[in-house]
Amino acid sequence: MLRLGPFAAAVARCQPAGPSLGPLCLAGSRGSFARSWLPAGNCGALSRQVRAAAGGEWVPVLKTPKGTRDHSPAQVALRDRLLSAVVSCFKRHGAAAIDTPALELREMLVGKYGEGSKLIYELQDQGGELLALRYDLTVPFARYLAMNKITNMKRYHVAKVYRRDNPATTRGRYREFYQCDFDIAGQFDPMIPDAECLKIVHEILSDLQLGDFVIKVNDRRILNGVFVVCGVPESKFIPACSTVDKLDKMPWEEVRSEMVGEKGLSPEAADRIGEYVQLRGGLDLIERLLQDPKLSQNKLAKEGLGDMKLLFEYLTLFGITEKISFDLSLARGLDYYTGVIFEAVLLQQDNEHKEELVNVGSVAGGGRYDGLVGMFDPKGRKVPCVGVSIGIERIFSILEQRLEAEMLYKKDPKLLKQLQYCEDTGIPLAAIVGEQELADGVVKLRDVATRQEVDIPREKLIDEIRRRLEP
Amino acid sequence: MLRLGPFAAAVARCQPAGPSLGPLCLAGSRGSFARSWLPAGNCGALSRQVRAAAGGEWVPVLKTPKGTRDHSPAQVALRDRLLSAVVSCFKRHGAAAIDTPALELREMLVGKYGEGSKLIYELQDQGGELLALRYDLTVPFARYLAMNKITNMKRYHVAKVYRRDNPATTRGRYREFYQCDFDIAGQFDPMIPDAECLKIVHEILSDLQLGDFVIKVNDRRILNGVFVVCGVPESKFIPACSTVDKLDKMPWEEVRSEMVGEKGLSPEAADRIGEYVQLRGGLDLIERLLQDPKLSQNKLAKEGLGDMKLLFEYLTLFGITEKISFDLSLARGLDYYTGVIFEAVLLQQDNEHKEELVNVGSVAGGGRYDGLVGMFDPKGRKVPCVGVSIGIERIFSILEQRLEAEMLYKKDPKLLKQLQYCEDTGIPLAAIVGEQELADGVVKLRDVATRQEVDIPREKLIDEIRRRLEP
Repeated sequence: MLRLGPFAAAVARCQPAGPSLGPLCLAGSRGSFARSWLPAGNCGALSRQVRAAAGGEWVPVLKTPKGTRDHSPAQVALRDRLLSAVVSCFKRHGAAAIDTPALELREMLVGKYGEGSKLIYELQDQGGELLALRYDLTVPFARYLAMNKITNMKRYHVAKVYRRDNPATTRGRYREFYQCDFDIAGQFDPMIPDAECLKIVHEILSDLQLGDFVIKVNDRRILNGVFVVCGVPESKFIPACSTVDKLDKMPWEEVRSEMVGEKGLSPEAADRIGEYVQLRGGLDLIERLLQDPKLSQNKLAKEGLGDMKLLFEYLTLFGITEKISFDLSLARGLDYYTGVIFEAVLLQQDNEHKEELVNVGSVAGGGRYDGLVGMFDPKGRKVPCVGVSIGIERIFSILEQRLEAEMLYKKDPKLLKQLQYCEDTGIPLAAIVGEQELADGVVKLRDVATRQEVDIPREKLIDEIRRRLEP
Repeated sequence: MLRLGPFAAAVARCQPAGPSLGPLCLAGSRGSFARSWLPAGNCGALSRQVRAAAGGEWVPVLKTPKGTRDHSPAQVALRDRLLSAVVSCFKRHGAAAIDTPALELREMLVGKYGEGSKLIYELQDQGGELLALRYDLTVPFARYLAMNKITNMKRYHVAKVYRRDNPATTRGRYREFYQCDFDIAGQFDPMIPDAECLKIVHEILSDLQLGDFVIKVNDRRILNGVFVVCGVPESKFIPACSTVDKLDKMPWEEVRSEMVGEKGLSPEAADRIGEYVQLRGGLDLIERLLQDPKLSQNKLAKEGLGDMKLLFEYLTLFGITEKISFDLSLARGLDYYTGVIFEAVLLQQDNEHKEELVNVGSVAGGGRYDGLVGMFDPKGRKVPCVGVSIGIERIFSILEQRLEAEMLYKKDPKLLKQLQYCEDTGIPLAAIVGEQELADGVVKLRDVATRQEVDIPREKLIDEIRRRLEP
């Protein structure tokens, strides 16, 4: 069975069944344990326990912390292949690796992440410095630049970061996860480093053959300009921003009612915002907004639009504009962005409306943060920076599910089940070799959607598959 | 200048000078800061602050947490070369990689490390599970085996671990550091996996050309047998053990007085222990102890000595006994060891007594831990394990200092200073190419210790250097 589809859908994975002796709560303090039975379902976040069959001792349920996981040898091998594809792209673009500790002084992380700050893991005060686990690789990079007085650097960093987020492990969202960051620090001609970041995302996502994708681009200055000309008070920029960011997951009507209801914007302001943030396009849209009577009066927005136009010129030279969408709803959550922001999402055929492509998740993101290094410098000296983070956990879980799919058929190779699987997951072609096909020197090629089958001579198979898969 | 020495001594490195505006204490609580001046020297472990020249804002002193460090691109490159040498040896011996989270449930780590437990980093209780940073890779491996019901596995794991130890960064002792572990789990014929671990240490240390080394070997059962036959009560085995372990750093008289004074052993017991733990040797010593009228009566010691004899037979087949020393003072601190234990140390010529080799630090260690997996299994099922950990931070700091040494001479290439450096650091030969040597087609080869110089034709240089460096 050939696995030819551009994107294999998820194979649902189940957690192994837990111990069946009923949940028991552990109220643990350091070094000693107080144990008591609590009603099932009332355990909060305490660890469940099982009574050990041998010796009657209490043995903790064996698990990794919530939102984390072990990697088996097969998973490590896959991850290493994936990381090496990403790193070789970073190196091709001239970046050098650095490493920083997983622990940072807490004060280094304070005030850098906005809403994200509450997700920072803090270490217990055991005497000595107050520490936290790093939340990303960008703030440690800025700290590294300021500490070593570096004003020019193209670096990459591949390492684990930690967030006390709500895990969604089947979608690749963990509390401990790898980030693969590429950043360019330094004063250069406008938009050239920014364009290189987008080129890198394009190269990596193309190399990995994850299927169709789009890279959304926006600029914090344009977004702020929109809020200004729509009459939003500055104190409400950040809440308005985080609501706008939800436009990829909910329709405008819901976003609007959250703005007016929860965030306290006036209905008129919300309506005006709605006229802008639902726009997406390319150079044509940029030109139109540069002529927009209101927006063109705002200095920040005009700067942002001018830079966006320049960015698109570079992206045209790189030949990648086809995958780029200037999308005014893109906001991104982190406080430190100051200019261009971007996010790459994978697209997949909608199961109900076959002609539509739907967003199945973000796999890369980044932007410009010109003020962050200055927050660490005693004299406030700024080092302009732009960078991108590749979301390899998400990509890993997609590749892993593909791998699992291929394993599945070794266990139960019934033909009908395999064809059903192709239909369910959008695999377009199936190549079938039975005894008759072997004898005839052909391969039966089945169009999964139409269920039509044709015998193809072996020597023509590759060409035929290529022809059928052409866009 | 050729750098031919087997071991380059440390080039002293200084910390960059701190800010000179005087220390200020920061009493920080989450999200807000209360700041106050305190007298210098009374800051405890709180962060020092400097007044920012611009804006009068308070900016924290830029540093990584105590005992941790950043790696520059050059350091990452060196570290990656080192890790890849170690990993390729692990793979050559058939191990597969796994990975586990840096965070573990606290209860998984409790009761596994003896004295080490107080060095575990605990995370703040922010609601949810009680977590800690992993202290080593062995306990997570045992948890992984038990959790996945694996009874046979040869795995390696390269990752950072965390210990709130007293850092000695110039000697490569950090609070965040890499461990490179190779372990064999499963029931096999006695001493074959144990011998493979020692072979691996021998291969890696030879490959890396770190200079002379010795691998000390002992067995927890022999040590316990010694304590029994010397009349030490079982409750004092562990304190006695940790005192014996200091024999590589202090003379027997001091060890004895610590045993009697601090640890409360009787002077007679201490003297009897002294007769055993100062012994070291090879097969001959094992044979002698197997005939020892007291020790041979102790079942555990006899088992340990029998296995030690078998181990030496395998090591003879591997051709590596020359670097192995059966050393009864080796104890190792961790609670979980149950059988063979070992530790590799680098040796260097003593500056005062040239003919003696002194221990300049441990670079690998490990042993057998047959009970650890059973501590995690609900039914207490045991999986015998043996493994080794390569101390790459120590090796890294040696290689890094060599690298710094080679950099030094680019800045100040005066000949006399270079020769002085060779004398100071024990580099045995210097190759000098001046204008005259260039014209004559020769290289002046200088014996650093005797200061004798001979002109060697270029085509004979390599052979001559090899001849002189032969052991």
